[in-house]
Amino acid sequence: MVNQYINKNKDRFVDELLDMLRIPSVSADPKFKQDVMRTAEFVKQRLIDAGADNVELVETAGNPVVYGEKIVDPSLPTVIVYGHYDVQPADPYELWTSPPFEPVIKDGKIYARGACDDKGQMYMHVKAFETMMQTGTLTCNVKFMIEGEEEVGSVNLATFVKENKDRLTGDVILISDTGMLGNDTPSITAGLRGLSYVEVEVTGPNRDLHSGLYGGAVANPINILCQMIASLHDENNHITIPGFYDNVQELSQEERAEMARAPFDLDKYKKALDLGDVHGEAGYSTMERNSIRPTLDVNGIWGGYTGEGAKTVIASKAYAKISMRLVPDQTSEEITAKFKKHFESIAPKSVKVEVKPHHGGEPVVTPTDSVAYQAAAKAYEDTFGVKPVPVRSGGSIPIVAMFKSELGLDSVLMGFGLDSDAIHSPNEHFGIFNYMKGIETIPMFYKHFAEMKK
Amino acid sequence: MVNQYINKNKDRFVDELLDMLRIPSVSADPKFKQDVMRTAEFVKQRLIDAGADNVELVETAGNPVVYGEKIVDPSLPTVIVYGHYDVQPADPYELWTSPPFEPVIKDGKIYARGACDDKGQMYMHVKAFETMMQTGTLTCNVKFMIEGEEEVGSVNLATFVKENKDRLTGDVILISDTGMLGNDTPSITAGLRGLSYVEVEVTGPNRDLHSGLYGGAVANPINILCQMIASLHDENNHITIPGFYDNVQELSQEERAEMARAPFDLDKYKKALDLGDVHGEAGYSTMERNSIRPTLDVNGIWGGYTGEGAKTVIASKAYAKISMRLVPDQTSEEITAKFKKHFESIAPKSVKVEVKPHHGGEPVVTPTDSVAYQAAAKAYEDTFGVKPVPVRSGGSIPIVAMFKSELGLDSVLMGFGLDSDAIHSPNEHFGIFNYMKGIETIPMFYKHFAEMKK
Repeated sequence: MVNQYINKNKDRFVDELLDMLRIPSVSADPKFKQDVMRTAEFVKQRLIDAGADNVELVETAGNPVVYGEKIVDPSLPTVIVYGHYDVQPADPYELWTSPPFEPVIKDGKIYARGACDDKGQMYMHVKAFETMMQTGTLTCNVKFMIEGEEEVGSVNLATFVKENKDRLTGDVILISDTGMLGNDTPSITAGLRGLSYVEVEVTGPNRDLHSGLYGGAVANPINILCQMIASLHDENNHITIPGFYDNVQELSQEERAEMARAPFDLDKYKKALDLGDVHGEAGYSTMERNSIRPTLDVNGIWGGYTGEGAKTVIASKAYAKISMRLVPDQTSEEITAKFKKHFESIAPKSVKVEVKPHHGGEPVVTPTDSVAYQAAAKAYEDTFGVKPVPVRSGGSIPIVAMFKSELGLDSVLMGFGLDSDAIHSPNEHFGIFNYMKGIETIPMFYKHFAEMKK
Repeated sequence: MVNQYINKNKDRFVDELLDMLRIPSVSADPKFKQDVMRTAEFVKQRLIDAGADNVELVETAGNPVVYGEKIVDPSLPTVIVYGHYDVQPADPYELWTSPPFEPVIKDGKIYARGACDDKGQMYMHVKAFETMMQTGTLTCNVKFMIEGEEEVGSVNLATFVKENKDRLTGDVILISDTGMLGNDTPSITAGLRGLSYVEVEVTGPNRDLHSGLYGGAVANPINILCQMIASLHDENNHITIPGFYDNVQELSQEERAEMARAPFDLDKYKKALDLGDVHGEAGYSTMERNSIRPTLDVNGIWGGYTGEGAKTVIASKAYAKISMRLVPDQTSEEITAKFKKHFESIAPKSVKVEVKPHHGGEPVVTPTDSVAYQAAAKAYEDTFGVKPVPVRSGGSIPIVAMFKSELGLDSVLMGFGLDSDAIHSPNEHFGIFNYMKGIETIPMFYKHFAEMKK
């Protein structure tokens, strides 16, 4: 019955998504403010059409959150759906083969900014909800919380959550804003890394100096910064900050073996990135290095003369932005403090060092033995015919930790996108196969979740 | 007689310099082209007024060279005076306490762009020449070669020299474009370091990557660049490039002791630059580190995200500009080749490295036992009352090596500026004491040089 309804309405489901993709809801650029609001209205109206109650645009200091709900029976479990209706900027436009806000379908894929991230994946939930309403199969209460600032750091979402704790009671947060390994290898993101992000400033002499007259006699802050950064890894690519690994959960051999089931082709990986070799912590595989292990990367560095030609200057200052990806049970506060203390301690007397913390985020893990994970896994198995692989993603979704801390709720990350979807890049796309599989799989999650929660 | 003439004409000598300083002859900015030409005409006219023959503006592909000569007697030694009439840009104008092209005299110093570098020091030679002509004391032939592109790298001077070898025959090049240690500690620059300058590019993945998804698994080119740069010095701050020191002339203990006579106050030095400590090669003093020892400095570094806030990117590429100061008998070609070979050899397989050579310059030394040096030393002793200290400067003046290679002539660097004159900076100035001392000392050089050459 569910599948029948979905098949019958497939073209309309796609057309409605294309309509939403035509609205350039770029949250990072104020000139799209009207379009952001139009998109919020669009989502609101579609939730009303699908049968949600109490649908409204909740004002925030920034873009509104679209809220809507369907309380079938207060005794049933409640699923809170999170998604976002804003999109990344589309620049550089000239690299798109078709205009980013004029969606086209090619080879079974919808090409448009936001096709996957996250309009397409968010709208699967609206259409799955409509399907369950129309077929009388809604087995849980539902609350929608669709924000418009994810691409600018969800700056007002925590405030919204704090101020709306009463209506945000529920049993699980359901999010489709991640990917899966492949169309024949479904996977569920069972963990996300946290983040500690700092900016460092190294000051040598109090003004820029002529490198001829002073070179060799004073500390060059760029050379010193390079030495300090280089010293943060040892020859095995372990991070040398004292206590950095203290709270790292080591996975068991069984867990690592389970993870290693995910198909991975090292040659393809190297070829795709044009790498002579991979590079990382000794004793761990590439997939482990970017998921279950913490890392330290320089995200930006600058200092001295960076224009055309040659200038013989010793800069007064050198800067770097450095981020560390964290795993359970590291915390961003702990790691930022350890970094700061260590980095200041290794500075030679000939320079001054300042460490400024930026934002952080906490690592999260959805236990694979939790009801939510198990219900999701069964849903994928129903529609894909194979058991999904649990995957730890190297990325960070700070709101997931925020939902946990503010609402006490775990999130389950049912992503249907692919790595190749080019989110945040020109020619973003989303397979119609994936869009429809999402609409099919989501009702199965509600079904299993309700049954298992009984 | 000489001193009488100078004293009588002191005010006019200063006024004429102020007139020249009012013309903004900034060679780096095409909008000052007319002013550059006016300054060349100014110098030409003053050389004629002073009694020079065959004065002309010699066209080049850029700004003209002012040439003039006085051949007293072909059997006498010939001094070729080099200087430049162009100046550095004056930006940032707002940091000047008086407008850069409206010279004022404060506390016995002339404040204006070019007051010291090099209009003031160049014009000392014109006025010293006038003095010798008017007092019948010119004991050598003189040839003036005053260029207008020194501040943009003397781009056309080598061509001028090659095309004018016939008229540029002589015995020594005399240049006042350097400084001395102090007004009561005259010094002569007896050596200049050479330069090797390269730009390096490190490429990791073929595109910018998300540091969450790839961090820890691929080589981050910024981290790698930092490690490679850090490895270029060992724990004693020796440079680790194989063969780097092969051709370095070690100075004798006597020579080092002679150099150490130059007054130097480490505390003052640290305080002036706000340094917690100095930093350099083990086994050498600060003054040695920046003069008789070769160095390696990063002059600029950049890569990844350098804007406001945080972006979690692994850059595809990282860059640095690296210069090495050279001492006799290193050559820029040799050192650039050794750097390139070594830097490429230390790159891990996970990145690609490219090394692009920029321009170079050769180290030069004026032997302190040469006639030219000895004549200059006697001249300073005549007018300052103390023997000048021979100083090796850490900087490079590539034209000095060019004069040697093209004309076979040594240069003697009779500078009268001070470190505190703020050349290339706002509020450049030149002491009237220094200007007049230069005009007094130069005729003494001619006198001693003629006598010693007999």
